[in-house]
Amino acid sequence: MNSFGRLFRMTIYGESHGTGVGLVLDGCPAGLPLKVEDFEMDIERRKGGIQKGTTPRQESDIPIFKTGIFNDRTTGAPITIYFENNNTRSGDYEKLRAIPRPGHADFVAHEKFGGYEDYRGGGHFSGRLTVALVAAGVIAKKLLMLVDTDMHAEIKEIAGMTDLDAGLQKAIDAKDSVGGIIECRVQNLPASLGEPFFDSVESLISHAVFSIPAVRAIEFGTGFAAAGMFGSEHNDAIADKTGRTITNHAGGVVGGISNGNELVFRIAIKPTSSTPKEQETFNRETGVREIFSVKGRHDLCIALRVPVVLEAVTALVLADLLLLEQKIPRVLKDREDDNQ
Amino acid sequence: MNSFGRLFRMTIYGESHGTGVGLVLDGCPAGLPLKVEDFEMDIERRKGGIQKGTTPRQESDIPIFKTGIFNDRTTGAPITIYFENNNTRSGDYEKLRAIPRPGHADFVAHEKFGGYEDYRGGGHFSGRLTVALVAAGVIAKKLLMLVDTDMHAEIKEIAGMTDLDAGLQKAIDAKDSVGGIIECRVQNLPASLGEPFFDSVESLISHAVFSIPAVRAIEFGTGFAAAGMFGSEHNDAIADKTGRTITNHAGGVVGGISNGNELVFRIAIKPTSSTPKEQETFNRETGVREIFSVKGRHDLCIALRVPVVLEAVTALVLADLLLLEQKIPRVLKDREDDNQ
Amino acid sequence: MNSFGRLFRMTIYGESHGTGVGLVLDGCPAGLPLKVEDFEMDIERRKGGIQKGTTPRQESDIPIFKTGIFNDRTTGAPITIYFENNNTRSGDYEKLRAIPRPGHADFVAHEKFGGYEDYRGGGHFSGRLTVALVAAGVIAKKLLMLVDTDMHAEIKEIAGMTDLDAGLQKAIDAKDSVGGIIECRVQNLPASLGEPFFDSVESLISHAVFSIPAVRAIEFGTGFAAAGMFGSEHNDAIADKTGRTITNHAGGVVGGISNGNELVFRIAIKPTSSTPKEQETFNRETGVREIFSVKGRHDLCIALRVPVVLEAVTALVLADLLLLEQKIPRVLKDREDDNQ
Amino acid sequence: MNSFGRLFRMTIYGESHGTGVGLVLDGCPAGLPLKVEDFEMDIERRKGGIQKGTTPRQESDIPIFKTGIFNDRTTGAPITIYFENNNTRSGDYEKLRAIPRPGHADFVAHEKFGGYEDYRGGGHFSGRLTVALVAAGVIAKKLLMLVDTDMHAEIKEIAGMTDLDAGLQKAIDAKDSVGGIIECRVQNLPASLGEPFFDSVESLISHAVFSIPAVRAIEFGTGFAAAGMFGSEHNDAIADKTGRTITNHAGGVVGGISNGNELVFRIAIKPTSSTPKEQETFNRETGVREIFSVKGRHDLCIALRVPVVLEAVTALVLADLLLLEQKIPRVLKDREDDNQ
Repeated sequence: MNSFGRLFRMTIYGESHGTGVGLVLDGCPAGLPLKVEDFEMDIERRKGGIQKGTTPRQESDIPIFKTGIFNDRTTGAPITIYFENNNTRSGDYEKLRAIPRPGHADFVAHEKFGGYEDYRGGGHFSGRLTVALVAAGVIAKKLLMLVDTDMHAEIKEIAGMTDLDAGLQKAIDAKDSVGGIIECRVQNLPASLGEPFFDSVESLISHAVFSIPAVRAIEFGTGFAAAGMFGSEHNDAIADKTGRTITNHAGGVVGGISNGNELVFRIAIKPTSSTPKEQETFNRETGVREIFSVKGRHDLCIALRVPVVLEAVTALVLADLLLLEQKIPRVLKDREDDNQ
Repeated sequence: MNSFGRLFRMTIYGESHGTGVGLVLDGCPAGLPLKVEDFEMDIERRKGGIQKGTTPRQESDIPIFKTGIFNDRTTGAPITIYFENNNTRSGDYEKLRAIPRPGHADFVAHEKFGGYEDYRGGGHFSGRLTVALVAAGVIAKKLLMLVDTDMHAEIKEIAGMTDLDAGLQKAIDAKDSVGGIIECRVQNLPASLGEPFFDSVESLISHAVFSIPAVRAIEFGTGFAAAGMFGSEHNDAIADKTGRTITNHAGGVVGGISNGNELVFRIAIKPTSSTPKEQETFNRETGVREIFSVKGRHDLCIALRVPVVLEAVTALVLADLLLLEQKIPRVLKDREDDNQ
Repeated sequence: MNSFGRLFRMTIYGESHGTGVGLVLDGCPAGLPLKVEDFEMDIERRKGGIQKGTTPRQESDIPIFKTGIFNDRTTGAPITIYFENNNTRSGDYEKLRAIPRPGHADFVAHEKFGGYEDYRGGGHFSGRLTVALVAAGVIAKKLLMLVDTDMHAEIKEIAGMTDLDAGLQKAIDAKDSVGGIIECRVQNLPASLGEPFFDSVESLISHAVFSIPAVRAIEFGTGFAAAGMFGSEHNDAIADKTGRTITNHAGGVVGGISNGNELVFRIAIKPTSSTPKEQETFNRETGVREIFSVKGRHDLCIALRVPVVLEAVTALVLADLLLLEQKIPRVLKDREDDNQ
Repeated sequence: MNSFGRLFRMTIYGESHGTGVGLVLDGCPAGLPLKVEDFEMDIERRKGGIQKGTTPRQESDIPIFKTGIFNDRTTGAPITIYFENNNTRSGDYEKLRAIPRPGHADFVAHEKFGGYEDYRGGGHFSGRLTVALVAAGVIAKKLLMLVDTDMHAEIKEIAGMTDLDAGLQKAIDAKDSVGGIIECRVQNLPASLGEPFFDSVESLISHAVFSIPAVRAIEFGTGFAAAGMFGSEHNDAIADKTGRTITNHAGGVVGGISNGNELVFRIAIKPTSSTPKEQETFNRETGVREIFSVKGRHDLCIALRVPVVLEAVTALVLADLLLLEQKIPRVLKDREDDNQ
């Protein structure tokens, strides 16, 4: 339910306005060097409040290592990392309880959990939990580096515009939230990862990616455009015995299996549900529809914060597959990995 | 690996040119009426050879019930259904072994399984296994009917054209394979299915959908287009206490949870890798690149056969979620369900 | 539910008096040589009808390879093996339906599956399904041989007597069924298998072992006797850097992890529920208690058939753990393993 | 690895001498009342330092609710409970690192995790983690109460003696650790729980029970003694339509399924490995065998602390099975459960 992965398995927990959020990561090989500083850059990338269009809420977001790390290395036991919530203003939310916000999980959470859910700031449904995904991703990416696999996700469009500043300005001018397109590329991924059917690389990555709030679509390689191509155009000719292809319409996955070429996929992020605009919704208590507007601290373009989260969940999938294919050992024997 | 589902769990097996393909379905409630005739329509929908653009290969595809069915009802024990392969011509494929076909799994299968794979007609990677998915889907759809949930998938575009006949003619004229877009709609799906993060409805459906060969993309609700919308446009206003929304940009899923509105998503099918056109690939034995063309029986537009497979995997996910939420019982008590 | 194993995962299906029983084995490394003859010895060991005290029912029990095997080797795809039921006489059972036999699953099967269960000869609850366990065990034992791990289970007591012939004679004289004690020993098992808590070697083996019908108890090393020993007696002194111990009270597992010494455990098999003696039970239809006796073909001492099943489920667990610890590769590269 | 359960799933983490230990419990129904005081009694039962024969180490062991609880009720989101370690004296252990203690996990932990393991006080292998099991058990037992299922485990033998005080005195007199036998009885358990093979009630309970450190054996009903009985003796005659049996040799489980009678099983606890007696082991650094004795704080009879842990893991299994069989709802609708 709140876990993912077969051999490299993470569990996330926590609420937006509770004491904090965190993760347990089980199955990480023993001997991986790990320090608080390793998390700084990615946690910083995820934070709001720096770029125009992101929320002014600021969490210090220092990862607190609880278990599974000893003498600055992973021990092979479950790793627990916790992030305290310091900067919550529940008052913003409590008064809205009778009014399920459109586009948010308020209505479905109430239906699913019978009114027992922690409704403050989205509770367990909050994007706040992505900090736990990012933390797990930092560890996963360190594992990928053991086989020289590297990745990078970046935003390609904001509000339908490839000129990102213009897209963001469009949101600011309209005083409305906007969405975006993010692309992820993974270099030097070994071939042979994934399975023909249910555990295809695309199946696993899309499963993980749709865990990220606000994702509405994913396409691999040429994606939707492939539906309009001829087979002779789309097929990637194999160039040599390494499996390198002349083109890469497949985006690095054929028959569900990585083929050694660059893994490429794109996702769509919807505009943030919380917009400063007035909106209509249904009031549970009064039984009538009413106009309301969100006053809390919110991002105009949540997509700006997603690339590092996308890398994280992708790295989780790939680290798991590398362990399944025995391309990463269960214990890191070589002390020279200290330098990574 | 070749299994999917938590409570309603299927395992598929078989090869294109082996003795047959089949499935084990574990966790199906006891007491569901099930006859061979229940499978006819969906198996027929999946077959090639009827429409222009599909393969002349014809399998009789009669489901052979091996276990788990007694007196025309499910017993609660694992259901095994087997399909014999009658119509295989391995000779078409064996001579091609040194030449991994572009766009096919030949290369990655060889890499992953060290040359031990059954390479005839794609072996275990073959689209032939989708008949097992369809069979499981028939059972899953019968379960959905218990809560009056219905679904329909249909092809919306061929070769980039919404005029399907024109799209297909384009393939025939060009003597090349083409792709297509398929949309799936599910009516009357209960709210509360799915989980906030890793087991969101989108996560589970996309996981299942990318098990279908040739799928390259998926989008829920407005999908990629959402990335270009304003929040005030995209948010679906809640109309009443049932959670019905005025618009349905979300496509029936909010915060990972079904919200009771119509579930809507679209997928992209790439053009079939097997095209009559000459293509270039790398010959493993000679070590040089060469021109080849596929002579076997193949579809010009595999997308024509996909809608029923898409329904099937969607139904698998939803039946599992309905069991998880206890909206379908473990034993069907009421004998009056005979009429379904 | 009917599956077991994480990386090396089997699913069993079938009924005593249906068309047959079988298994799907997923995750077996590619390249393992496998022929029908490999199964003969173990299937013969499991059969009744040879020793005094076992049932005269005779199945030919020839494993039918359906999928996952090509050119006499595993391909890496799911392996399906099927056993036809040829020798069933359902009439023996149908008349007993109203009378749940004491000690059998008749009553609970009816409760659990609402009367929809296949009640003929125990249906899916039948010991007949252990032939599928044995078949999977043959494959698992071949994997264990790759790391020179060998095992042997044998019966140590029948009807409370270590003189086995005397124990069996006791059953024949009393015209009553009897139980027995079986011991399993595994030599040359690598250290480091298992996990400290939920996936301890004992947890996994006992989980698998209690899948065998009629097992009532299991003990590792000195087992129940350990409860009466002093710590200084029970502790096994470590002799050298290999971890070899002077004594082996632990039975090869410490802290849930294999320690490289011989793995030793014993199980108790209850007397077969089907005894020729008259017994009392409750008649569902008449609502009164009545006397009945079982007329079918049954074993006086089912324990005689269990050692090979015990080896099989133990081998399944150990093969899975060896894959998890990467002590067996996913693809068997060396063609010289032909000789095994 | 460190998780257990299908729908009601717990993950444990932590080390003996780290910052603390804890659990994540996922899948608990929403709406269950839960307060810190609910845990007091069971945590107290688990503690050492009260009875003769238990360790003087005292942890305050106050459960710290981190997530998943809101307004004194479960929310349906993952529950995280943490226990700080306050009372650790690592110095006791560090000097022993070169000397793997006989009967402890020191040797296997080093082998398995390559020397990266937290070796202080057994690290992740410590019995300290059973406090997390007990906490999860408190919640599971509250769920069992919803269907009026109750349980009790108690020690039946110490050091081979049914006179417990005499058994304990034997340990004190000998200045050596001793083991014991514990019995668990569950009343009013619904029938129909469990599966015929791999997920039999015995399989699942034994899996969970062997997670408890120092358990060496388990038997259900008459257990090992059943191996010496006749079938006509062992079979439990069914008395009426509820499935009540005249005797209960089966211990409440037939064919792997609960039959509605009392569930009864016994386990053997070995003598604590840490004994005040001098012992011999192998010194990794010097490469020679040497005499040593354990100086830390330890129990003479760890079995005294096990009954509540045994109840906890049993309750975890049963709560999971009750959810699987839909005998407990996913959301507790009735507010009147406040009184439990």
